[in-house]
Amino acid sequence: MAIRLHELCGSDPARVFSPYCWRARMALLHKGLPHESLPWRFTEKAAIADAGTDKVPVLRDGARVVHDSWAILEDLEDRYPGRASLFGGEGGRALARFVAQWADMVLNPAIAALIVSDIPALLDAEDREYFVRTREARFGKPLAEVTAGREARLEGFRAALLPLRRTLSERPFLHGATPGAGDYIAFSGFQWARVVSPLPLLAPEDVLHAWRGRLLDAFGGVARAVPAADRG
Amino acid sequence: MAIRLHELCGSDPARVFSPYCWRARMALLHKGLPHESLPWRFTEKAAIADAGTDKVPVLRDGARVVHDSWAILEDLEDRYPGRASLFGGEGGRALARFVAQWADMVLNPAIAALIVSDIPALLDAEDREYFVRTREARFGKPLAEVTAGREARLEGFRAALLPLRRTLSERPFLHGATPGAGDYIAFSGFQWARVVSPLPLLAPEDVLHAWRGRLLDAFGGVARAVPAADRG
Repeated sequence: MAIRLHELCGSDPARVFSPYCWRARMALLHKGLPHESLPWRFTEKAAIADAGTDKVPVLRDGARVVHDSWAILEDLEDRYPGRASLFGGEGGRALARFVAQWADMVLNPAIAALIVSDIPALLDAEDREYFVRTREARFGKPLAEVTAGREARLEGFRAALLPLRRTLSERPFLHGATPGAGDYIAFSGFQWARVVSPLPLLAPEDVLHAWRGRLLDAFGGVARAVPAADRG
Repeated sequence: MAIRLHELCGSDPARVFSPYCWRARMALLHKGLPHESLPWRFTEKAAIADAGTDKVPVLRDGARVVHDSWAILEDLEDRYPGRASLFGGEGGRALARFVAQWADMVLNPAIAALIVSDIPALLDAEDREYFVRTREARFGKPLAEVTAGREARLEGFRAALLPLRRTLSERPFLHGATPGAGDYIAFSGFQWARVVSPLPLLAPEDVLHAWRGRLLDAFGGVARAVPAADRG
């Protein structure tokens, strides 16, 4: 049986958008492992309850069920060692965790504060109610207020990308000539933004824009095939 | 002939403090390579001119002269492959560069803004004049103004360490059970602060405080043997 991946989407099952699901999807593609997408919505907790979590991604590989994007990356690396390495050795595995913590604590929260108000329009009614209620509780204010004045905050957001930008000004991918786990982890936040929001996070002349493009084109353009949010 | 390393100090040759020099020193210790420290002051440009730079660290290994801390780490890894690996493979080497860019662009500038005014007191007159003039030009204000109100800014500084803290809450070192290049790169900023400033950058209960302690104790306590700034 092929590997199956529960991935977050809204009304349209093709518009998978969660940054954590994209990490798992890109890792499967990197490993060249055939897999099937199981579209999943925020309120479908029952479908993944057997994984011991209420969040996606959840990966099913035969009888094995793995949740949490980092655990999925490690699991794929360990169970399929004969395929292309995600980490490039133990040092890469260790430091990819730092990249993930940077993305989780710095990059993705900064992206969320710019795009979160665009997400409800992608969701069906029940999911929309759930999403708005839980995220407004998290931010402590209406989502429209979270992203208010976001165009004026773009410059500060882009400045905070300097460590990523400097590294990628020296090479095509964080991992060097070809991409690896660190690239997929960071890229997935930008793919999330691309799918849900018309806000152009990256200036066209930014080396990060070209890096994102290389990852959109990777594996036959799987990430680019997901439609971007309407840019008006 | 043993490897020699030009390292920045002030009046006291034992108080080596540059974060970039500490990266190179820790890398030499990691590799177990005997080496000699050549104390160097800011205005001794002539002593390293043959390296094609006016900044330390500069490493001399026989006829070979290497400058720039990152280049030194790569050079040691490539020239001494039979000794303990600094990077833990190609993925580790690639992602250590991201750690370095994060340290160079986020961590060390944040530390500088808290401690730079403590440095002139460590320097002899000629170096002090050079340092104050060049750093005031860089910051665009007197150094006392750069660090003014620093106690009130400590909380924000510590919050910005979250990616590092989260990673190190899971393991003893960034590289896992034992330290590697990523650890030395990040640690060196804290060692710089420890040697030059009485400001306690890390709270005693912070996992980063314990991690710093493990690196101060590494290799027989070489880093801890350098006296800390007087904490009053």
